Amino acid sequence: MSLADFGLIGLAVMGQNLVLNVESRGFTVAVFNRTTSVTDEFVAKHPGKKLIGAKTLEEFVQSLKRPRKIQIMVKSNAVGAADRDAVDAVIEQLIPLLEPDDIIIDGGNSFYLATERRDAYLASKGLRFIGAGVSGGEEGARKGPSIMPGGPASTWEVMKPIFESIAAKVDGEPCVIHIGPGGAGHYVKMIHNGIEYGDMQLICEAYNIFKHAGFTTDEMAAVFNQWNEGDLQSYLIQITGKALEQKDPETGKSVVELIVDKAGQKGTGQWTLLNAAENAVVISTINAAVEARILSSQRQQRLAASTELQGPAVSLGSDKAALVQKVHDALYASKIISYAQGLDLIKTTGEKKQWGLDLGRIAAIWRGGCIIRARFLNRITDAYRGNPTLVNLMLDPFFKDVLNKTQQHWREVVSLATLNGIPVPAFSASLGYYDSYRAARLPANLLQAQRDFFGAHTYERLDKPAGEFFHTDWPEVIG
Amino acid sequence: MSLADFGLIGLAVMGQNLVLNVESRGFTVAVFNRTTSVTDEFVAKHPGKKLIGAKTLEEFVQSLKRPRKIQIMVKSNAVGAADRDAVDAVIEQLIPLLEPDDIIIDGGNSFYLATERRDAYLASKGLRFIGAGVSGGEEGARKGPSIMPGGPASTWEVMKPIFESIAAKVDGEPCVIHIGPGGAGHYVKMIHNGIEYGDMQLICEAYNIFKHAGFTTDEMAAVFNQWNEGDLQSYLIQITGKALEQKDPETGKSVVELIVDKAGQKGTGQWTLLNAAENAVVISTINAAVEARILSSQRQQRLAASTELQGPAVSLGSDKAALVQKVHDALYASKIISYAQGLDLIKTTGEKKQWGLDLGRIAAIWRGGCIIRARFLNRITDAYRGNPTLVNLMLDPFFKDVLNKTQQHWREVVSLATLNGIPVPAFSASLGYYDSYRAARLPANLLQAQRDFFGAHTYERLDKPAGEFFHTDWPEVIG
Repeated sequence: MSLADFGLIGLAVMGQNLVLNVESRGFTVAVFNRTTSVTDEFVAKHPGKKLIGAKTLEEFVQSLKRPRKIQIMVKSNAVGAADRDAVDAVIEQLIPLLEPDDIIIDGGNSFYLATERRDAYLASKGLRFIGAGVSGGEEGARKGPSIMPGGPASTWEVMKPIFESIAAKVDGEPCVIHIGPGGAGHYVKMIHNGIEYGDMQLICEAYNIFKHAGFTTDEMAAVFNQWNEGDLQSYLIQITGKALEQKDPETGKSVVELIVDKAGQKGTGQWTLLNAAENAVVISTINAAVEARILSSQRQQRLAASTELQGPAVSLGSDKAALVQKVHDALYASKIISYAQGLDLIKTTGEKKQWGLDLGRIAAIWRGGCIIRARFLNRITDAYRGNPTLVNLMLDPFFKDVLNKTQQHWREVVSLATLNGIPVPAFSASLGYYDSYRAARLPANLLQAQRDFFGAHTYERLDKPAGEFFHTDWPEVIG
Repeated sequence: MSLADFGLIGLAVMGQNLVLNVESRGFTVAVFNRTTSVTDEFVAKHPGKKLIGAKTLEEFVQSLKRPRKIQIMVKSNAVGAADRDAVDAVIEQLIPLLEPDDIIIDGGNSFYLATERRDAYLASKGLRFIGAGVSGGEEGARKGPSIMPGGPASTWEVMKPIFESIAAKVDGEPCVIHIGPGGAGHYVKMIHNGIEYGDMQLICEAYNIFKHAGFTTDEMAAVFNQWNEGDLQSYLIQITGKALEQKDPETGKSVVELIVDKAGQKGTGQWTLLNAAENAVVISTINAAVEARILSSQRQQRLAASTELQGPAVSLGSDKAALVQKVHDALYASKIISYAQGLDLIKTTGEKKQWGLDLGRIAAIWRGGCIIRARFLNRITDAYRGNPTLVNLMLDPFFKDVLNKTQQHWREVVSLATLNGIPVPAFSASLGYYDSYRAARLPANLLQAQRDFFGAHTYERLDKPAGEFFHTDWPEVIG
């Protein structure tokens, strides 16, 4: 067999599916896995495909055309820029075997600052590096993921033919662009995952309201299936409808209702929060989503508290159709807020790092392949095409119009859930952001008075020029 | 003059006031400031006091009794454990001048991991180190602050007489205890500051509701003054009443209403969020408070958005007394939640670090001297005395009873504000936490179904033993 066009290290499900995807586009692929039997089984399982199974890394590297293109798909568990993990271990093993200008691609969910460290390190060795976020789960990897590669533009040009051929396509456009230099690709993938947390939580809150209103799972499935035909059309809405339809073969009950209500959070969700805190950007919807997962995981505490801490009797009325419309609007508006916040964070970091990010094109490559794919993203692309310096997504004419039309129902849903003791932290945090952002006056003037009172921090005055600071000689307080 | 009992480096206002406080308790104090003229002026301004002004560090060190006790009060700006700042610079200058067992105290707002680094470093030099959080602002420093010292218990014993004599006293008890080893003192001070963010934001939300309901500043002042006589009695409620009473001599208008509604956030507030995210502890009230400051600071964006993004007409009814009672209950309940979350974070980190923290005694030293001092803290001390292993403050019989009695009004306030377009992010985040924590069932089961659908993450079942994981073969999804 001739030399391979592409090599992949790490044959877990995502890795295997990516290999089959690349191979299906006409490329020959070399594969390597630390446990050799996995390689053997994988190659044996796919006779007739252009696969080269290598038993050693030396053999693997030698089986590749130059410049070599080697994608690493191993689990990263570094949580800080300096932490070393399996990705570094593989890189160290590869370095002595490679030749100048060979390319290593890290396709895992690596921390973007670790990606920047690896980029600089490999450059110092005369090698090239791409940190690429790959979204779409197992199915996306096989049929076409959304790919977010970061690194030098010149390296992207070399990888472009393969990446564009394996990526998902929407309206004929591949769901991959060169995101930006350094860690830009893994950074954008991290925020993508944060947004995914938000989308999932918002759907869960809608479901929880319907459940408290007495909807059966079949009724709920019908609502989500119907929503998937309209403005909310998205992969997550679609699979929610399908999931709610699913019956357990053993008991005949709804599978969803049999599942324990405990979800974990780690990695990209947590990193997104840390990054927002460091950059002083508000991502309250994503934040609420992460917090909701944490509270869900404390199930024993919740069960104990449920008989101690009281709530109101639940009474959500009997007009199911009206409730569905209101919750639809609350979900739609909250989703806009969540994206507005996530994009604000990407914008802020992108400017700080001088990555030259194009938010409209980033939204465009999320339209296919990935978990958050949705019709909605076309509107985001349009928004930034119409105004590349848009300050906040909420102010785009289309989204502004949606928010102005949905805000009343959105309030009613948050109010109704609140009065009924149903937690809607993400709906509520989103609305709080909307109402704060549109407030010409917030109560921070009182806060500044307090700070001047106890710490002489000074304040600016509305009736004096900005930048001029005042202090009041507040009365003494006893005790 | 005889040798000094205590030395202090850094004569900004906090440093000067601490010196005067220590001196007033009968101790002789040596002082040093980088700019010598500040030292000279300070000593000259206080004739007859037992102060030794040193022109050089050598002279300063030589003027102290052994083991020397030297408190550094310089601005720390390190944001990570490894960052070097002015505290490190002073320490490096001191090391060659000191002798074994001399004690350096860092009384600034240092990052607790930097404190742990310094503690280990100074121990390796045969010196002793105390990282002490000091709260109470300028006035507290002079009259009696709340002090949160961390470090070895044996070093605490040496410092105890001075710390106990200068600390605020409540019911005869000094507001200082040995918090724990290493960075425990600065850690607890950091969370104290986070809680202070929460308290201030909750008061601002109450004020904002009253303002929208048409209360004059004098009416609002009267409400806060009245609240300061009851369950909400606290320094921050007290100064809020006083601040609202204050008139601007130039215009005759309310000072508070003249102040620009922009507040900053940094340091301890931000660190608290980062620490909570790292430890997967929900501190949604503090989080909302930090977010509210960030949004307040984006005033130009808000002014622009205020004419674009629509809200409802405001209509809060005319029964002011009823509104005051409801907002009182919302504030009280939200405050309990904020402390429950902050203490949960302290507990989690304390256990992880094996600091052996006593939450009840920590609450007790916050009763005096510091910004968050309040009658309320006695109840927290009682709660942990009654049950040292209390899982969550909300479950203490006293607080549980308050929450059960206030929850209805609390909901009504959040609902009313939401329907009227008044942002109440901290009230709302607190209630969301309460309702999530008391939920026997949260919608995370649907989230687990979604994760299993797109990523084969598996799930647990309610009708099967915990720890057994299941996967459903979900239908294929097109598009």
